[in-house]
Amino acid sequence: MNEAAFVAALRALPLDAGARGLRDDAAVLGDLVLTHDMLAEGVHYLPGDPPQDVAWKLVAVNLSDLAAKGATPRGVLLGYPLAGNSDWDAAFLEGLGSALTAFDCPLLGGDTVSLAPGAPRVLSLTALGNSSSAPARSGAKAGDALWVTGTIGDGGAGLRIARGAPGPTELLERYRRPTPRLAEGQALAPLVHAMMDVSDGLLIDARRMAAASGLAVTIELGDVPLSPAYRGFAGDDRPARLAAATAGDDYELLFAASPDLVPPMPATRVGTFVTGSDLTLTDGGVPVPSPQRLGFEHG
Amino acid sequence: MNEAAFVAALRALPLDAGARGLRDDAAVLGDLVLTHDMLAEGVHYLPGDPPQDVAWKLVAVNLSDLAAKGATPRGVLLGYPLAGNSDWDAAFLEGLGSALTAFDCPLLGGDTVSLAPGAPRVLSLTALGNSSSAPARSGAKAGDALWVTGTIGDGGAGLRIARGAPGPTELLERYRRPTPRLAEGQALAPLVHAMMDVSDGLLIDARRMAAASGLAVTIELGDVPLSPAYRGFAGDDRPARLAAATAGDDYELLFAASPDLVPPMPATRVGTFVTGSDLTLTDGGVPVPSPQRLGFEHG
Repeated sequence: MNEAAFVAALRALPLDAGARGLRDDAAVLGDLVLTHDMLAEGVHYLPGDPPQDVAWKLVAVNLSDLAAKGATPRGVLLGYPLAGNSDWDAAFLEGLGSALTAFDCPLLGGDTVSLAPGAPRVLSLTALGNSSSAPARSGAKAGDALWVTGTIGDGGAGLRIARGAPGPTELLERYRRPTPRLAEGQALAPLVHAMMDVSDGLLIDARRMAAASGLAVTIELGDVPLSPAYRGFAGDDRPARLAAATAGDDYELLFAASPDLVPPMPATRVGTFVTGSDLTLTDGGVPVPSPQRLGFEHG
Repeated sequence: MNEAAFVAALRALPLDAGARGLRDDAAVLGDLVLTHDMLAEGVHYLPGDPPQDVAWKLVAVNLSDLAAKGATPRGVLLGYPLAGNSDWDAAFLEGLGSALTAFDCPLLGGDTVSLAPGAPRVLSLTALGNSSSAPARSGAKAGDALWVTGTIGDGGAGLRIARGAPGPTELLERYRRPTPRLAEGQALAPLVHAMMDVSDGLLIDARRMAAASGLAVTIELGDVPLSPAYRGFAGDDRPARLAAATAGDDYELLFAASPDLVPPMPATRVGTFVTGSDLTLTDGGVPVPSPQRLGFEHG
């Protein structure tokens, strides 16, 4: 069973309305927002990644889901495998402390299990936050503009650098120490129609928002925001833009809003929602074929 | 690093007051109770256990922590490893549905990760509940009586049967399909001074409650409640009573209350809290040596 089949089967179980049909970044119960994300060694991080950075990323990816619902973090519960490597554990704890301090988010509890030494680690975190207006990813309307915060592609470039490609530390840091857009999410939540974080790739995540909203979306590749570091690393021709838009690990916020909304922070309009279904790409206003792979597909 | 050292290191990180110093069954934030427990293949369940029962147990052990805080379950988030065995996944989902229905607790969300086929599974669950008066495990007072619900030792006997010992299905079921004492916990929470569930063994868990409360506890082995099935399986001499009181997997509630409290449901008084520290055992009123092993020590 792959992830899609498993999640489809979960939908046949007793679901709370707050589960939003298991189609959103987080569960929403009144003003409470809850998310649970795991990182697996060899899948979500490389076995040689510094444990401090793995801990940071575990916190950041969960808080990014809270950010997408406009939530203020309230605390986290940790699920940690003890795999017989005290140095790794100590370094992980150091990174966990840095992340919890940086994001002003305390530890609430958790659990440990003993793994056989050498077994791949699976780390889990549950994050809890408060939001008075948590936007769904399914609320986009025809005519809405599609926006994204920050720049796209830096995390994916950082992954290539972590795997050995020559490139700047700045991009490696974007991969290893992503920053959840908490303040941006809190400011945007009351203003937008739909919001989610970009974790698997701009194109695949935008298509998911469109599908959840029963709409089509058009994205202009020329408008995808690239950082100077990314341009220096990969260029800014169409292949470089497609690589950025399909790489994942961005942890920026993607949101749908009325075409007259002016976002209260730097953000870039990259597309438009229209009636229909699926994703259309343009480059300089001219339709171009979508790539086979729009981003990271799980499981 | 073992579990105790890891949890001690976690206490140096930013902790919420609701974490209760990581010394309780669950975190308590206002009327919200949160717990996160994992089951690891080969540690908490046997590789040959029916997946339906593993799912049931995953839900039950988490809801048992909620029961110990007098909470009504509100929902769960699942962390599930896809390990390339669709039959196992389908059977797990069946058991998950049975447990969620039985305990009237909906699914709120979760995450999956892909494991290499054959890698040992680590299953995680976060459970969320509401309680207006969540007793800590640290609230026992000198002179309090120590009580336990139900019978002790059935789960441990069931584990021996699961491993091949001949014995009744009734005990095997107590091991594979424990019942969290939710109604009992809700009724007891406003009346008791301290409460926790018995997951690792009556003696070790009672000593933990005493230590958290800064007290000593005396337990009379002759008063440990044994089921007729347990007596038939193991007898009721001192070795049988010590085996029951140190085996774990009971998921009954252990609570400290004023000596004049009459619990509003069947429960058995098994001991008394006194000033001092550590655990004293008596059998027929005569002090007896404590066993080397008081119960299941983690990681």
